[in-house]
Amino acid sequence: MNLKTDKVGIIGSGSWATALAKILLENVNEINWYFRKQSTIETFKKNKHNPRYLHEVEFDTSKINFCDDINCIIAHSDILIIAVPSAFLPTVLADVKDLSGKYILSGVKGIVTDENLLVAEYLLKYFNVDHDMIGVLAGPCHAEEVAREKLSYLTVACTTEEKAMKFTQLIECDYIYTSASDDIWGTEYAAVLKNIIAIAAGIAHGQRFGDNFHAVLVSRAIQEIKRFVDQVHPIDRDIKAPAYLGDLMVTAYSQFSRNRTFGSMIGKGYSVKAAQLELNMVAEGYYATKSIHQINEKHQVDMPICEAVYQILYDKIPPHKVFGELTRKLC
Amino acid sequence: MNLKTDKVGIIGSGSWATALAKILLENVNEINWYFRKQSTIETFKKNKHNPRYLHEVEFDTSKINFCDDINCIIAHSDILIIAVPSAFLPTVLADVKDLSGKYILSGVKGIVTDENLLVAEYLLKYFNVDHDMIGVLAGPCHAEEVAREKLSYLTVACTTEEKAMKFTQLIECDYIYTSASDDIWGTEYAAVLKNIIAIAAGIAHGQRFGDNFHAVLVSRAIQEIKRFVDQVHPIDRDIKAPAYLGDLMVTAYSQFSRNRTFGSMIGKGYSVKAAQLELNMVAEGYYATKSIHQINEKHQVDMPICEAVYQILYDKIPPHKVFGELTRKLC
Repeated sequence: MNLKTDKVGIIGSGSWATALAKILLENVNEINWYFRKQSTIETFKKNKHNPRYLHEVEFDTSKINFCDDINCIIAHSDILIIAVPSAFLPTVLADVKDLSGKYILSGVKGIVTDENLLVAEYLLKYFNVDHDMIGVLAGPCHAEEVAREKLSYLTVACTTEEKAMKFTQLIECDYIYTSASDDIWGTEYAAVLKNIIAIAAGIAHGQRFGDNFHAVLVSRAIQEIKRFVDQVHPIDRDIKAPAYLGDLMVTAYSQFSRNRTFGSMIGKGYSVKAAQLELNMVAEGYYATKSIHQINEKHQVDMPICEAVYQILYDKIPPHKVFGELTRKLC
Repeated sequence: MNLKTDKVGIIGSGSWATALAKILLENVNEINWYFRKQSTIETFKKNKHNPRYLHEVEFDTSKINFCDDINCIIAHSDILIIAVPSAFLPTVLADVKDLSGKYILSGVKGIVTDENLLVAEYLLKYFNVDHDMIGVLAGPCHAEEVAREKLSYLTVACTTEEKAMKFTQLIECDYIYTSASDDIWGTEYAAVLKNIIAIAAGIAHGQRFGDNFHAVLVSRAIQEIKRFVDQVHPIDRDIKAPAYLGDLMVTAYSQFSRNRTFGSMIGKGYSVKAAQLELNMVAEGYYATKSIHQINEKHQVDMPICEAVYQILYDKIPPHKVFGELTRKLC
């Protein structure tokens, strides 16, 4: 990877992709950026900002090669940053056959649910990617704060720390500090699990539990996350590091988390369908809850919080009943 | 300790003492309660609530033996709950000579600064208390939520878990779940350190850092707390448990923490004196910062966050300069 010569392409057009585009343009002179619709590209060029996300970020569009052909973007890029919701990943990459020889930095948060695959697993399985050329990005990082250049810390996880450091040079800048990690699977799983915890936190909030309980829930959650990732991928890691605990906290304590909002409605008595209709979206953690439940059938890790969310969302057991039992388990 | 026959006395009249009184009266038929002024006692009896704190908690005052003589309270109690700010502890106990034979549950949060002693250390040194008869209470627990009977979890730490369980029966009730711990020193130190971290979080907020940074700060803080308590009192403990991490989070994420408010003013450029005058109080963490700095001169634990707060509050180095260096250390 060579920042002076390598071309960088972005796949994704949401708020996180937009924040990453802003960060990249601090370090490279131009980027390729895939948008599905030519009309969006035209509006972007005219207004100098992404029409739908992070309006306040003004781009010098002369530095962006827009394209609505994903294979064109891939062909012209040595490094690809992928930042789409995991639920859409198979659709977005449907016309892509091969990513061999590409460095890939995944900003995708979540699990590819059809087969319960982490994003790195999915890329390895279907796109002929070199494992050593995949990096996974972890927060804690709200895109909105990147837009406002608030100091944020990102961790890149690869097969080794040395390889991760190749990616960190792409994103390190005045307002982004970076760390390198060799825990690609633990990082991905922790990012998936935190969305389930955010739903649990929302359910608790919807049921009128307070801040005291919330702190207990999040403490027990990071212990639960540690048990799971240590079982699934047993390496030496400190789960209290920002990429795990920080990412959990920034989500579980956010008033704006979609997972938390979804959970809050469930806690107040909405059905899953009604909550999804009202919010006009499906919270990522909803799918993750089922995937983790299924993955854990094999591992049998003690996961009372994730299991409680599963019982509420999928077994349709009333939240007050499930939480009545859960609260005792958290002692 | 026998709940049916032992008499319980409370020393302290603030919001935490009032919350504990409410909790105790769920389990015992009467309590002794020390107030410094007879006039406060009269007002309390007339209005059925503490005149200054947690107004919404109505007490059946027929179950409370009020007294303005601390030695009278002590003489008539087998179990004493002490819940006064640590700064006032020496004054409050000035006329007390001996606490031998008493069970003591400390809800004091903080350090006795003159000699940098933890509360249990202080009681052991000056009051002839039996080490096995001291319990230390830990949250996460805002008194205001106890007042509203929001489910909260309290941990009692003693020399052994078995001894701690004698105390937990005093406070376990519908809205208070309890845990027993054998980590009396780690629990006390973590409770002290969290107030320094809350000041750091406030300083960051005052300097306009955002939620992303806050999550990194709190993640690094719990690692720092672990390094310190593991060095000072090396036993097997999980610092992610609610009594440590939960207590840190509930404080560092609270908008109402006095330590955080104090820090925020410092971060905005107020001098220590100006902030204290404006707030009309001295935040507990202000003293703790100096005590921990002095205690750590012996232990030499790497504590970049606490040290940064010390440099700002005591060495008068401008916050932006100190945080400019701290932010790099948190990577």
